[in-house]
Amino acid sequence: MARRRIVIALGGNALLKRGEPMTVANQRENVRIAARAIAPVTADNDLVISHGNGPQVGLLALQAAASGQHTPLDVLGAETEGMIGYMIEQELGNLVPFERPFATMLTMVEVEPNDPAFQNPTKPIGPMYTREQAALLSKEKGWTVAEDGAGWRRVVPSPLPKRIFEMRPIKWLLEHSTIVICAGGGGIPTMYRPDGTLAGAEVVIDKDRASAVLAREVGADLFVMATDVPGVYADWGTSKHRLLRRTTPAELRALRFASGSMGPKVEAAIAFVEETGRRAAIGSLEEIERIVAGEAGTIVEPE
Amino acid sequence: MARRRIVIALGGNALLKRGEPMTVANQRENVRIAARAIAPVTADNDLVISHGNGPQVGLLALQAAASGQHTPLDVLGAETEGMIGYMIEQELGNLVPFERPFATMLTMVEVEPNDPAFQNPTKPIGPMYTREQAALLSKEKGWTVAEDGAGWRRVVPSPLPKRIFEMRPIKWLLEHSTIVICAGGGGIPTMYRPDGTLAGAEVVIDKDRASAVLAREVGADLFVMATDVPGVYADWGTSKHRLLRRTTPAELRALRFASGSMGPKVEAAIAFVEETGRRAAIGSLEEIERIVAGEAGTIVEPE
Repeated sequence: MARRRIVIALGGNALLKRGEPMTVANQRENVRIAARAIAPVTADNDLVISHGNGPQVGLLALQAAASGQHTPLDVLGAETEGMIGYMIEQELGNLVPFERPFATMLTMVEVEPNDPAFQNPTKPIGPMYTREQAALLSKEKGWTVAEDGAGWRRVVPSPLPKRIFEMRPIKWLLEHSTIVICAGGGGIPTMYRPDGTLAGAEVVIDKDRASAVLAREVGADLFVMATDVPGVYADWGTSKHRLLRRTTPAELRALRFASGSMGPKVEAAIAFVEETGRRAAIGSLEEIERIVAGEAGTIVEPE
Repeated sequence: MARRRIVIALGGNALLKRGEPMTVANQRENVRIAARAIAPVTADNDLVISHGNGPQVGLLALQAAASGQHTPLDVLGAETEGMIGYMIEQELGNLVPFERPFATMLTMVEVEPNDPAFQNPTKPIGPMYTREQAALLSKEKGWTVAEDGAGWRRVVPSPLPKRIFEMRPIKWLLEHSTIVICAGGGGIPTMYRPDGTLAGAEVVIDKDRASAVLAREVGADLFVMATDVPGVYADWGTSKHRLLRRTTPAELRALRFASGSMGPKVEAAIAFVEETGRRAAIGSLEEIERIVAGEAGTIVEPE
């Protein structure tokens, strides 16, 4: 098969599994598992890897708070791009020939100050709490909290990514078949001040949405979202639920998804496929090699 | 003057002044000052910017510890490359034309497991303590502590940088006149395990030494170390002390410097000049423009 340009977005939950203690050792072990899954597709493809940071950005926020400090979400996002990007570069680097170049790049992403998401925080970050803990934290820290699966979590605004600032360097590196790790955590959230200078924003951008922008901008042949489920299910929660193997933006639009995790993935897949006429895929991290070969996951194709 | 390739190493203490509270706001203000100093030299030169991370890596270690967690120094180093690199990219980006590309790259640096520095920790990180606090922390946490100026600080091993792994991408980006921010904090410390895989190391590499390797590898015409003093003084601590305006490796070798801050800078300057036959400079952050023009700081030239 001809060499392809592939963007793989690694789910934050794939890197730190739900319920696992947020230790560096656990994160590294999960990154190692992800690296093993990705390594087989490195040889014949040009690769861009992005990743989530929901659990990690919340963890670093708590660490700062435990020292009596406030670190804004843009700076925390930058810290997580360092922490997670490093582990991915090192662990994947241990599995591919030394000659293959790697670059992990900090990525600033622009959001609009008037994005309605600022009024409606939806993105869960940090650890799970009980309902009582969450209510207390909301009162003490002014957090917005919301249910997320079996527990409660802090939620922050998640405005739409409008632009990735470092696109030219990313493309130059891809021309040399560099494996580029970027747009971690959806990118470092930034927005323009009225005076025209760029500043950080106290939000977390959805990494699947940002990765769709990234995949479009690098001209990806395939955009893969790797998560902890085998793909997109129709009729989920009913006895008739079935994995969609091949689908289209139109078919996906007719289905309903929870706003939590699968919703943004489906939306990102639709956006990429409609804007580029190329394919997107959603599936399990362990099956990346088969997803890239078109043999697993949910493949979203143009009509 | 012809376009030159310049590596500027920003001192960690220039980014977070001694005695200042380690808040994000203070760091950003100091990065802004550094960006204003660097902006005038961006137009006519290709630029690589590295930076220290001593105060910041210690701060993040304390934040993790306050949450009852241990984050190893390689991961903390990666976090500080994210935090500080982001601020430099954003603040300097606000002062140069939008068209100029920027890339902040995580940088892994190799150290040797048998480096004698592992037996002799010398690199101060984190905040200042009183002698009594330091003694208590040493007992409680197993830290090595040492005097640093007016107080006491935790010290960690600082082995020599042997190799920067991401050199090819850095050079490819420079070919496009990208302003590259990299090797922050002396790079993320890594070393090979007996099985040939790369792992993190619990050390902090001296950023001037790592920047000298970086400057040599990118073929820099000039290697500038920006700090909080006007340059290198001869006869320091005596009534005859005088700023060296132009000097040579041989003249510097004949002088004595404290091992704290100026020692590694002088050593890095000597190494770069002797290995490349090009010039190095040590001087004040505020005077970078004049240092680059050869009008301020201490210029170290080949014999």
